[in-house]
Amino acid sequence: MATCETVAVDENGQTPKAIECRAWVAYAPKKPLTMETVIVEPPQKGEVRVRICYMALCHTDAYTLGGEDPEGLFPSILGHEAAGIVESVGDGVTSVKPGDHVIPCYQAFCKECKFCVSNKTNLCGSVRQWTGNGIMKADSQSRFTVKNTGEKIFHFMGTSTFAEYTVVHEVSCAKIREDANLESTCLLGCGVSTGLGAVWNTAKVEEGATAAVFGLGTVGLACIEGLVSAKASRIIGVDIDPSKFEAGKKWGCTDVINPKDHPDKSIQEVIVEMTDGGVDYSFECIGNVEVMRSALECCHKGWGESVVIGVAGSGKMIQTRPFQLVTGRVWRGTAFGGFKSRVDVPKLVDKYMNKEIKLEEYITHRMNFEDLNEAFDLLHQGKCLRAVLKASDP
Amino acid sequence: MATCETVAVDENGQTPKAIECRAWVAYAPKKPLTMETVIVEPPQKGEVRVRICYMALCHTDAYTLGGEDPEGLFPSILGHEAAGIVESVGDGVTSVKPGDHVIPCYQAFCKECKFCVSNKTNLCGSVRQWTGNGIMKADSQSRFTVKNTGEKIFHFMGTSTFAEYTVVHEVSCAKIREDANLESTCLLGCGVSTGLGAVWNTAKVEEGATAAVFGLGTVGLACIEGLVSAKASRIIGVDIDPSKFEAGKKWGCTDVINPKDHPDKSIQEVIVEMTDGGVDYSFECIGNVEVMRSALECCHKGWGESVVIGVAGSGKMIQTRPFQLVTGRVWRGTAFGGFKSRVDVPKLVDKYMNKEIKLEEYITHRMNFEDLNEAFDLLHQGKCLRAVLKASDP
Ligand SMILES: NC(=O)c1ccc[n+]([C@@H]2O[C@H](COP(=O)([O-])OP(=O)(O)OC[C@H]3O[C@@H](n4cnc5c(N)ncnc54)[C@H](O)[C@@H]3O)[C@@H](O)[C@H]2O)c1
Ligand SMILES: NC(=O)c1ccc[n+]([C@@H]2O[C@H](COP(=O)([O-])OP(=O)(O)OC[C@H]3O[C@@H](n4cnc5c(N)ncnc54)[C@H](O)[C@@H]3O)[C@@H](O)[C@H]2O)c1
Ligand SMILES: [Zn+2]
Ligand SMILES: [Zn+2]
Ligand SMILES: [Zn+2]
Ligand SMILES: [Zn+2]
Repeated sequence: MATCETVAVDENGQTPKAIECRAWVAYAPKKPLTMETVIVEPPQKGEVRVRICYMALCHTDAYTLGGEDPEGLFPSILGHEAAGIVESVGDGVTSVKPGDHVIPCYQAFCKECKFCVSNKTNLCGSVRQWTGNGIMKADSQSRFTVKNTGEKIFHFMGTSTFAEYTVVHEVSCAKIREDANLESTCLLGCGVSTGLGAVWNTAKVEEGATAAVFGLGTVGLACIEGLVSAKASRIIGVDIDPSKFEAGKKWGCTDVINPKDHPDKSIQEVIVEMTDGGVDYSFECIGNVEVMRSALECCHKGWGESVVIGVAGSGKMIQTRPFQLVTGRVWRGTAFGGFKSRVDVPKLVDKYMNKEIKLEEYITHRMNFEDLNEAFDLLHQGKCLRAVLKASDP
Repeated sequence: MATCETVAVDENGQTPKAIECRAWVAYAPKKPLTMETVIVEPPQKGEVRVRICYMALCHTDAYTLGGEDPEGLFPSILGHEAAGIVESVGDGVTSVKPGDHVIPCYQAFCKECKFCVSNKTNLCGSVRQWTGNGIMKADSQSRFTVKNTGEKIFHFMGTSTFAEYTVVHEVSCAKIREDANLESTCLLGCGVSTGLGAVWNTAKVEEGATAAVFGLGTVGLACIEGLVSAKASRIIGVDIDPSKFEAGKKWGCTDVINPKDHPDKSIQEVIVEMTDGGVDYSFECIGNVEVMRSALECCHKGWGESVVIGVAGSGKMIQTRPFQLVTGRVWRGTAFGGFKSRVDVPKLVDKYMNKEIKLEEYITHRMNFEDLNEAFDLLHQGKCLRAVLKASDP
């Protein structure tokens, strides 16, 4: 091996070996997860093995576990919102080393593919064809095996963070500063970043604009936080669960509406009336195609833009009359809020450390690694913003 | 009356009187038009009476006559692509005077409403509520009566250019230079301007971009012309009528495709394959909601933008999977290509006079005022780009 090449190394400076640890395996849709002892292979070329410290649940995990994701593979290790510490790296890895604090990112950033060089998108194409199939690029294999049965387990979203150790591609691994609390920064792996970025990067909301946010979960609240920082003049929060309104107002909603309080009007009619023609921007943070239509149609003629963030069930279609677009409304979407993960996540950590963005405020439940199924129950009951589970000491 | 106010005046400096002239009346959907002698009232406050010199047919006229426009009113005088000369003006009109050459514009521009002061849209709200109901703002009445029967006839799109004289709001009347040929410039009242503006203003296509244009009628060809001038690197023309391909290539298509030549693939699959992932921009210039979906889905992941231009039948819905938007495609629409009519149409005339844009090339048939029903037949048979009819000598 040429001397200039970096070689695989673990925390002790040794060649990495397989690790036995605990992980939550999703064997089939709609079934509780099973805790298993799994063997996690050493990282291969371009890969990083991460010890997970904290992990959170996002609705996208529940969506895949619910069998609604047409790309969902089983058995797999779910999870994509986490923070941890690099345990070992494979050959050729230069951007992180053992001991570094990292956030696994389901949106990779390779700096080189046609997506990464474009200034119009954050969708990296470098590992998508492998992560979409639950495997790693180096050898098209999984790094996870159940110890007792020898069964191979698929990766999920290139992250698989519901485990004590996971293996990710280097391009999916954002190195962050070490003085930041991993229990909080783990939220930057998905929900909070997505909401902030939808406002800042995708919609590019300007000072004085009006907005409507559909769904006051973590993603919706992060949109509201982004809108407040963008100095939006009016922020209308919409939810069918009135218990969400307190947080909505605390985060900065100027108005909160429950569509159920307006049985004889569509929610878009209600919003168009109260805003004299509609809002400048709207955000769908639920995953309901009917609401996506409402979110578009509550936008102002001529310039209103609606951003789809929610992930809808398999096969579901959005629809509207084309006249809505011909008269100037724009329909967009966002994945990870348009952030280029490996460069932007460290900057979001800086913002958190500068107290420019909230993180703790989204954590409603602190639990242990053993409690993942209970955390899913809370999520399904709509009782939590983010439940954060501790996997290991930072 | 205060001396500083302008007062109603006709070509001879007299107070305008009612005019008797010929006009084509649409009495009912799906019926041929009837030529009638109509009485055209003098222009009221803020109105302009125009002698039409040349008029062209656009698909939107056929669409309303076909009964597909939910807002379509009958009996009415259709037509919205024309050029003429001001015969008289009502009180308070300052931007044009008798003898001025003008293009009636179905998109008004008042300079003052919230739309006109916005730099994001060209949709003016100043007269929309009256033009949408076939009447004039000053007194909520029509200016047209059939001489023989006394029946009042609705205006159409605020223009009603299928007549020897029409009355329009001052805000809908673009004054243009007098050395430009009205037979050609009449096309700037709708189709050609729309296609050019869709590329320049709505999509803002940049040099080197790739594009697909669905429908190679006048609007589609004008998109192609706009794309050539924007220095697009690849322009894919799509039509189900292969007789349109010659013009497509002449205007600047690098590729032409007939979806019927690909029976086992969707047209979006064909385009995604031939462009290694999809085009940067697409334009739907047909009015077919299925094609609108194809146009969105043939766009490149991450940044592709699709512009809906075609006007779809009443009640028709566009649809797609929201994942198309979440992965970075943008769905827009355009009305009159985003041009602020009264300021931009005169500039388009300048471009025509500087030979920067084509006009004559879109005229495939020159006919007389009497031939309007034959012109509609040609349009329905897909045999013409633009048929221009002469109503009076310039
Ligand atoms: N595009 C992306 O990159 C991305 C990233 C993260 C999450 N997501 C998606 O965003 C969505 C929101 O995620 P979350 O974690 O905030 O979810 P959440 O369940 O915490 O919040 C959803 C909220 O919507 C409300 N709601 C449900 N139905 C509603 C309706 N018909 N009208 C109004 N409100 C309604 C619920 O009461 C809840 O408060 C999910 O679909 C998730 O998969 C997308
Ligand atoms: N948004 C606006 O401001 C605006 C302005 C002007 C016109 N329009 C609309 O634009 C559309 C085009 O107008 P035009 O005058 O160019 O019409 P046109 O009839 O001359 O051209 C339409 C073309 O589409 C082709 N076509 C029909 N079905 C097709 C299919 N399934 N796939 C591919 N090609 C197909 C036809 O062969 C024809 O060449 C119309 O719907 C019109 O109402 C909109
Ligand atoms: Zn990349
Ligand atoms: Zn998520
Ligand atoms: Zn206006
Ligand atoms: Zn038209």
